[in-house]
Amino acid sequence: MASLADQAIRWQEDRLVLLDQRALPNKVAFVECTQASEVVAAIRDMVVRGAPAIGVSAAYAVVLAAREHYAVAPEDWIRRMDTDLQSLAQARPTAVNLEWAIARMRDVMARTGPGDPEPELLQAARKLHREDVQANRALGAHGASLLEDGAVVLTHCNAGALATGGYGTALGVIRSAHAQHKIKAVYADETRPWFQGTRLTAWELLQDNIPVTLICDSAAASLMRQRQLAWVIVGADRVARNGDVANKIGTYALAVMARQHDAGFMVAAPTSTIDLKVSSGTEIEIEERSQQELTQYHEVALAPAEAGVWNPVFDITPAGLVTALVTEKGVVHAPCEEKIMALMKD
Amino acid sequence: MASLADQAIRWQEDRLVLLDQRALPNKVAFVECTQASEVVAAIRDMVVRGAPAIGVSAAYAVVLAAREHYAVAPEDWIRRMDTDLQSLAQARPTAVNLEWAIARMRDVMARTGPGDPEPELLQAARKLHREDVQANRALGAHGASLLEDGAVVLTHCNAGALATGGYGTALGVIRSAHAQHKIKAVYADETRPWFQGTRLTAWELLQDNIPVTLICDSAAASLMRQRQLAWVIVGADRVARNGDVANKIGTYALAVMARQHDAGFMVAAPTSTIDLKVSSGTEIEIEERSQQELTQYHEVALAPAEAGVWNPVFDITPAGLVTALVTEKGVVHAPCEEKIMALMKD
Repeated sequence: MASLADQAIRWQEDRLVLLDQRALPNKVAFVECTQASEVVAAIRDMVVRGAPAIGVSAAYAVVLAAREHYAVAPEDWIRRMDTDLQSLAQARPTAVNLEWAIARMRDVMARTGPGDPEPELLQAARKLHREDVQANRALGAHGASLLEDGAVVLTHCNAGALATGGYGTALGVIRSAHAQHKIKAVYADETRPWFQGTRLTAWELLQDNIPVTLICDSAAASLMRQRQLAWVIVGADRVARNGDVANKIGTYALAVMARQHDAGFMVAAPTSTIDLKVSSGTEIEIEERSQQELTQYHEVALAPAEAGVWNPVFDITPAGLVTALVTEKGVVHAPCEEKIMALMKD
Repeated sequence: MASLADQAIRWQEDRLVLLDQRALPNKVAFVECTQASEVVAAIRDMVVRGAPAIGVSAAYAVVLAAREHYAVAPEDWIRRMDTDLQSLAQARPTAVNLEWAIARMRDVMARTGPGDPEPELLQAARKLHREDVQANRALGAHGASLLEDGAVVLTHCNAGALATGGYGTALGVIRSAHAQHKIKAVYADETRPWFQGTRLTAWELLQDNIPVTLICDSAAASLMRQRQLAWVIVGADRVARNGDVANKIGTYALAVMARQHDAGFMVAAPTSTIDLKVSSGTEIEIEERSQQELTQYHEVALAPAEAGVWNPVFDITPAGLVTALVTEKGVVHAPCEEKIMALMKD
């Protein structure tokens, strides 16, 4: 049965309904969007986050934008959508799935016949959504096959059902391996500054009856040193052609520490996250978010007002530190440009 | 002029007055102790924290305990202090300065003549306190001499005036180097779960008019990779005979990353933090603190109630990763047992 997290993005009658990830785990609340601009705001403000989830939401936003513009200009709706599609693409910069989903929907837009485009676009968005879940199930199985019995694993941020169309990428691997009774223990690091690990990953895993132990980000090295860690398993926001991985801040340090402690480092991501236009990680834009994420929590000030803040929310892990890139098309061991190009051609 | 942080521990008339570090940076509040048990509670509850600060506070606690017991049993006060000294020693396990200060005060206790021991013990505690500040000033100068002009440095946790009798260890080096105009930028990582970097280090540096930029702990690797970092500078809670360093959780990962990125890794600590009884880091007890430190912040729940937590608050950095151990007696480059024994003999 699909969990609540698996239904975090759903189309309901005439609107997109998003589980508000800002309120978890304290409150299960939803944000309803009937206009594309509301989806843009939801992505920017992190009602919905996670690269594949952003992509799926954007596909539905295209449906909403088309409805809006077709209603006022049935002959000219495609041209009028440009501004909406631009703000959508710019809602967040690092995850490639946003552009990827918009490009796919643009193809469908170009093929629609005369008349109301909504049914055809909605069908396309639903298909993209369904395919994301299928990809996650497939990559989950591929990833689980890499784990030995009794594996202790660590995941960072949230690459679960909440971060995708459903099932999850890194958590997809963990769910799949857990179903096969291969998992001895799952650790999740809290993932400052947004606490995706504490708030979202722990919530999701517990909904699935998978026990989880939280650690602070900086305890990961001690975990690796003291308790035999088999794998670090993470998702990705964008994978470059050479296999460099943009993912949540802190991923790079985990990859270095995993190598240092002979743990595997697995990146679980659908091929929609691989960006062949980008030759290496240095070309990927790293989003910086508000200083407030570090200087206060809810109403409580953490820092003196005069303190400076540098808050990059992603980092780049060089391909050389990745043991396995796990996609729906299969596993790429020690990824490099040649292997990734071969995978994408299949 | 001494800053407020430099007066975080002070003896005032008949009592120990501690700046309450739990309330910073939002509130400057003080906790007054007239009984040893109140100092034990203040150490355990982190009104005062930081290895040398704990040591200094413990010395004053001995004065309070002696007063209490001498009042009721002028002939037998020393024997009656055993229970108090035991709870004091056990208030927190990792910092060696606690046992060190108690041992020093025990020596003084043994030498006191008949009559009220308070004046002599108070004098000894004040001397221990004064020597800690002097040691920090000396090691601050030694450490600063290792920095090149225009240095970008990162510090972890709070090893400042607040963590010591005054002036600070890691921040003593930074204050000293800043006064010599050698520092281009100071980064402080927030230091989960207690936010010592955000709440205390930033506050202290700004009080001293030293600009500081906060990063989340897991951004340190990106900082090293993207901005030329010269040194990571940290304090210590206990240094083993072989040079292994127990310090705030996250220190070990920073040392690994510093090595990886050709940054220096400096441990600034007075010799009172060196524990010759301990041959290596594996023998040092690592304190684990409350799960709540990860699952809630003030009144806000961060995690689902069923989530497990592993919260070790210190880790061990192997001596091999330490570029320089900076003490009041001088600098030990690439510390090892032989060099540390030589330093301690001087």
